[in-house]
Amino acid sequence: MAAVKACNILITGANRGLGLEFVKQLLKDSSQKQHIFATCRDPDGPKSEVLRELTKKHPNVITIIRLDADDPCSIKESAKKVGSLLGKCGLNLLVNNAAKMANGNIQTSSVEDMKNTFNTNVIGPLLIIKEYLPYLQAAAKASGIPGMSSNKAAVINISSLGGSMTRMPPMYIQFPELPYCISKAGFNMLTVLAAEEFKADEILCMALHPGWVKTEMGGEKAPLESKESVEGMLRVIGSLTEKQHGGFLDYTGETIPW
Amino acid sequence: MAAVKACNILITGANRGLGLEFVKQLLKDSSQKQHIFATCRDPDGPKSEVLRELTKKHPNVITIIRLDADDPCSIKESAKKVGSLLGKCGLNLLVNNAAKMANGNIQTSSVEDMKNTFNTNVIGPLLIIKEYLPYLQAAAKASGIPGMSSNKAAVINISSLGGSMTRMPPMYIQFPELPYCISKAGFNMLTVLAAEEFKADEILCMALHPGWVKTEMGGEKAPLESKESVEGMLRVIGSLTEKQHGGFLDYTGETIPW
Ligand SMILES: NC(=O)c1ccc[n+]([C@@H]2O[C@H](COP(=O)([O-])OP(=O)(O)OC[C@H]3O[C@@H](n4cnc5c(N)ncnc54)[C@H](OP(=O)(O)O)[C@@H]3O)[C@@H](O)[C@H]2O)c1
Ligand SMILES: NC(=O)c1ccc[n+]([C@@H]2O[C@H](COP(=O)([O-])OP(=O)(O)OC[C@H]3O[C@@H](n4cnc5c(N)ncnc54)[C@H](OP(=O)(O)O)[C@@H]3O)[C@@H](O)[C@H]2O)c1
Repeated sequence: MAAVKACNILITGANRGLGLEFVKQLLKDSSQKQHIFATCRDPDGPKSEVLRELTKKHPNVITIIRLDADDPCSIKESAKKVGSLLGKCGLNLLVNNAAKMANGNIQTSSVEDMKNTFNTNVIGPLLIIKEYLPYLQAAAKASGIPGMSSNKAAVINISSLGGSMTRMPPMYIQFPELPYCISKAGFNMLTVLAAEEFKADEILCMALHPGWVKTEMGGEKAPLESKESVEGMLRVIGSLTEKQHGGFLDYTGETIPW
Repeated sequence: MAAVKACNILITGANRGLGLEFVKQLLKDSSQKQHIFATCRDPDGPKSEVLRELTKKHPNVITIIRLDADDPCSIKESAKKVGSLLGKCGLNLLVNNAAKMANGNIQTSSVEDMKNTFNTNVIGPLLIIKEYLPYLQAAAKASGIPGMSSNKAAVINISSLGGSMTRMPPMYIQFPELPYCISKAGFNMLTVLAAEEFKADEILCMALHPGWVKTEMGGEKAPLESKESVEGMLRVIGSLTEKQHGGFLDYTGETIPW
């Protein structure tokens, strides 16, 4: 099984849900060299308690960084701070995981929900990619190995089946999440265009669907536990090559049609 | 050749470009029964002069209505006004044509351009569909004919190849239009979800790419004239059945992959 051996890893929304589970599982396999930048929008708040406890136990592996995807200033500041800690190795793996859900159909979706989901789920990741790009480029250069991999330099966008024009419609009556789905479709477009821009730098970029998972967002009815989802996603991330660049996979490695 | 025989037609952004060409060509074939609601955001401004002249010549066929896709109030007011003029026949054909372009790549796309394109190209059409839905439903009911067609009740979303995750990436270096492409991908998601909601009412909904056309948006280098593009689109619109419901076609009738 391919493992994620990336040295410097940054995860957004790392204080709970799938983001926190990413941190936990990366910790298990972590080598001396590995460092995890666990970002969240309120590091001192009650929702980040578990992450703070984890960091106390592993102060050399985890650094908590404030990053609010809705706030361009905080994104900039986070990149400055992370940049100062990274040194020349750069950032190997950026996981855009933070996101907001909003329910609604044509009648009930509010303009506010449309704007908020687009802000957090699309504009946020765009600015994050933009600010962290120099560090990803540094990592790609430093690696010396040709080709693409998540150990070298990669952006993993945690998207959703809800962003698939092909797969979402039959599920829409059960999951009327119009603002969320529209934002994830936009996020997928961001992914394929970023992939196009990153080709020359050999920075891998792809969209990954975690499955339907028991988190605050996924709810109690979800069939998957975070553990299984993240195990699968880490397996997929660890095995990525340039073949999956610009692609859309789920946590089992299966391709999802746009 | 299939012709558009819809009685009551509404077009957004009808004062110039493809929207105006739609009005011109529909006029040519217009029967006594046909009425065109030509909407634009500034009916009295200099950019609407040609439309005003055309309306003076055909006062029984065209009604100009103010509709600014960025302004929820103007959308509501337009629907009230159109509704009062429609009577029981309802609205047969709604063409969401108005849109905004914005250039940029990951480095250069501004938050403002991201928000503005999303507002005009996605939130606007969502609110327009929502406000006009009762009139589309009335038209579908009034028709008495089973199945779907643009003569009965239809929403045609003028999208773009730029919204195709499959087709856009290879063109991205030549057309760095990240905010626009992201908005059109979101617009395509809106189209497939609206199509899902409209099934029961038998209101047809699909996305249509006009080709690359010489308009203010398309620019001088575009290979197509508005005339040819709109002739093609009207041919496609006139021949739609439930088979194309929720689909994505270009002006020649060819299917575009998401
Ligand atoms: N769970 C599923 O079934 C499922 C299915 C498909 C896709 N996904 C995707 O998987 C990813 C993780 O979802 P999840 O299930 O773990 O969701 P979750 O339990 O709701 O957690 C969401 C995370 O995103 C953070 N977040 C929200 N807005 C933020 C902002 N503006 N700035 C920074 N962080 C922000 C939250 O932080 P706070 O604690 O501060 O709110 C939280 O850490 C998302 O991209 C989601 O769309 C999930
Ligand atoms: N031309 C192409 O090559 C091409 C290719 C693919 C797709 N498309 C799509 O085709 C459609 C028509 O494009 P076009 O080439 O005719 O563009 P255009 O020449 O730039 O015309 C755009 C039209 O949209 C209107 N508009 C913009 N923002 C608006 C708003 N907030 N409210 C109301 N109306 C607004 C403009 O009105 P004002 O005069 O008030 O600005 C104008 O009537 C668009 O959806 C576009 O995305 C065009």
